[in-house]
Amino acid sequence: MADPTVSPTEPPPQRRLVQVPAVPRRPPERTKASILDSRKHNRALVLATLYHEGAKSRSDIARATGLTAPTVSTLVTDLERDGLVADIGPRKDTTRLGKPASLVQLQDDAVNLVVLDLSGDGRFSGAVFDLRGEAIARREVQLGDAYGSAAVELALRLAEDLFALAPRQMLGIGVGSPGIIDETGLIRLAAHLGWTDLPLAALLSERLGVPALVGNDVNMAALGVLHFRDTRVHNLMVISVEHGVGAGLVVGRELVEGEQFAAGEIGHVTVDENGAECRCGRRGCLDLAIAAQHLSRRLAGAAQQERPALRAEAGRVLGAVLAPIISMLNVNTIVLTGPVVLIEGEFLDAARETARARTLGPVHASLDIRSLAGDTDLVLLGAASRLLATELGVL
Amino acid sequence: MADPTVSPTEPPPQRRLVQVPAVPRRPPERTKASILDSRKHNRALVLATLYHEGAKSRSDIARATGLTAPTVSTLVTDLERDGLVADIGPRKDTTRLGKPASLVQLQDDAVNLVVLDLSGDGRFSGAVFDLRGEAIARREVQLGDAYGSAAVELALRLAEDLFALAPRQMLGIGVGSPGIIDETGLIRLAAHLGWTDLPLAALLSERLGVPALVGNDVNMAALGVLHFRDTRVHNLMVISVEHGVGAGLVVGRELVEGEQFAAGEIGHVTVDENGAECRCGRRGCLDLAIAAQHLSRRLAGAAQQERPALRAEAGRVLGAVLAPIISMLNVNTIVLTGPVVLIEGEFLDAARETARARTLGPVHASLDIRSLAGDTDLVLLGAASRLLATELGVL
Repeated sequence: MADPTVSPTEPPPQRRLVQVPAVPRRPPERTKASILDSRKHNRALVLATLYHEGAKSRSDIARATGLTAPTVSTLVTDLERDGLVADIGPRKDTTRLGKPASLVQLQDDAVNLVVLDLSGDGRFSGAVFDLRGEAIARREVQLGDAYGSAAVELALRLAEDLFALAPRQMLGIGVGSPGIIDETGLIRLAAHLGWTDLPLAALLSERLGVPALVGNDVNMAALGVLHFRDTRVHNLMVISVEHGVGAGLVVGRELVEGEQFAAGEIGHVTVDENGAECRCGRRGCLDLAIAAQHLSRRLAGAAQQERPALRAEAGRVLGAVLAPIISMLNVNTIVLTGPVVLIEGEFLDAARETARARTLGPVHASLDIRSLAGDTDLVLLGAASRLLATELGVL
Repeated sequence: MADPTVSPTEPPPQRRLVQVPAVPRRPPERTKASILDSRKHNRALVLATLYHEGAKSRSDIARATGLTAPTVSTLVTDLERDGLVADIGPRKDTTRLGKPASLVQLQDDAVNLVVLDLSGDGRFSGAVFDLRGEAIARREVQLGDAYGSAAVELALRLAEDLFALAPRQMLGIGVGSPGIIDETGLIRLAAHLGWTDLPLAALLSERLGVPALVGNDVNMAALGVLHFRDTRVHNLMVISVEHGVGAGLVVGRELVEGEQFAAGEIGHVTVDENGAECRCGRRGCLDLAIAAQHLSRRLAGAAQQERPALRAEAGRVLGAVLAPIISMLNVNTIVLTGPVVLIEGEFLDAARETARARTLGPVHASLDIRSLAGDTDLVLLGAASRLLATELGVL
């Protein structure tokens, strides 16, 4: 018999750090939605329709969502009161008969988001975004020799500074950070920043009094590509070649975070059992072969004419690591990020060729490995997309 | 504006071969469910509750599903008429006050399923299952030198023979076959059977007049493990070391099939660029190093005392291919299937050790690589699970 103290129609307990009304991204499959859940769901449905399809009349919203006209009307009134949508008057459409319907439009600047990218080499950067991920303000701070709690304080102050610059009400703070990060925004380990079990989302939320979420930087970059760049793909892998090497994986438009939130930690896959010793205590890790810091150093120490071969060799190593992964997932879209000078050219070409050469035809026939190395907003956009999903339900 | 010829509340067009009432496994997220959809959904909800939780009173079903008592009553009456559930009288529970409620039970033998496993070495096998995957009858046929259309005919006759043995109404036919297979059950390529673009599901359904589905054998094995063996895991990889090497991947309890249905085709990942030539035209494929046919031949040609080292070497090769995949996915459960004599012992030990040695601590801390080599029903059970999902919505 069911536990009598638990109502079966209650939603499952949420593990979110900050309790704000949020829409479950996937409705629970085996329980009937409660009325409260429906209301939230329907509100998000209307917002998502306006977010993705632009201004619409109330009756068009009803058609697009399958909601009744009175329900749409009530929800639009609520959303107008919250300032999230506005009535922008009748459409300029003279081909229709009858009185033109008044259009409702999402107000992109109704609320602001603060987003931080803690993955930079020696710096933290951040921005104030509107609901479309357009930057209203940007700031960055140099890390210098800040480490451990000093580095935490830098991140918190950067968030405060951006918060002060935001002209509108704040939806929340989203952060992409290096490290293994759990679903509460606790950074389990970010070795080069000296962070272990750091509850960064809780600290940010406490300091600023708004919802905060923290995710792995490359996972955020993958969401950034998914929601703001390659918006039509369903499957996607981002490989970041920066201070370390990491990956973000999207399957069926969902981020794969792994059972211990360690999915994408490919930097310490062994690529040469007899290779140099790595800071992880093992030998011949992928990081040593291709991470920006190591590759840059090798290039700097080499003669000009040797550099293309060094870059190509690094690309081949990456291609060989990707071959089994591509074969397991049959994912078509792989995006490389990191310093343009390292990634584009011989490195990218060699990675592509090696990945193709080491996989079966049907697996790589539609494979597209490309660079978004110059696109430095991906982590920020991904963090924004998560806030848009958890706080408004529009993504 | 929305296309006026398409009602937005209609479910998306189904690409299923045989049109029977079925429950979408994940309700569409941005449209309100139509009344017809709800009825199907609610019927599946009741069936799933009885399937997973055993006999229940109508009021317990209402509590467990969140449906109203009259809705449950109507649905149970429908299901009784279809023979899928039966009223088994009052519970033997004297500790409660009042008149004991009558219990409703799913009838495991109400309908039968025919399932085929075409992955065997030189044979096709199959069974008639009840709704729990219990075998009512089994048959197998030797392939001999059957190839191409002769092999198709063998599969169709095996299905017919099993169909004739089934005592009950047939829910459908589920098949696990080698090859790259699309969502309609078209086998794009199964090289060693000589099949290209073979619409096996359509042929089966036409011949036998019931719903048929065909999926990749290792994908089916992964579903078999998920639904009948390790039923509490959410993420899972099955590696099959048989005629060829293949994998089935489950992430978040969903099968990952790949963008061209080629996910898991790891048999032709290059493991030795200077290795022997493979039938795929390239050199040093994983298949040559560890597939049962090749490994058995190497073992047969070696002296007794050399065999453990050969098995260990094959296990190390597999471990090295798995290391990048495990790091990308942070999946904990990896199940090996294939001939017990090849897989268990040195091979499995070496695969485990190598996979751990070549990955970062947080990635492999909870890694569990184990053998289900002796469990020959996994493909059949997986095919059954898919039928239970598509035809009844209980999985």
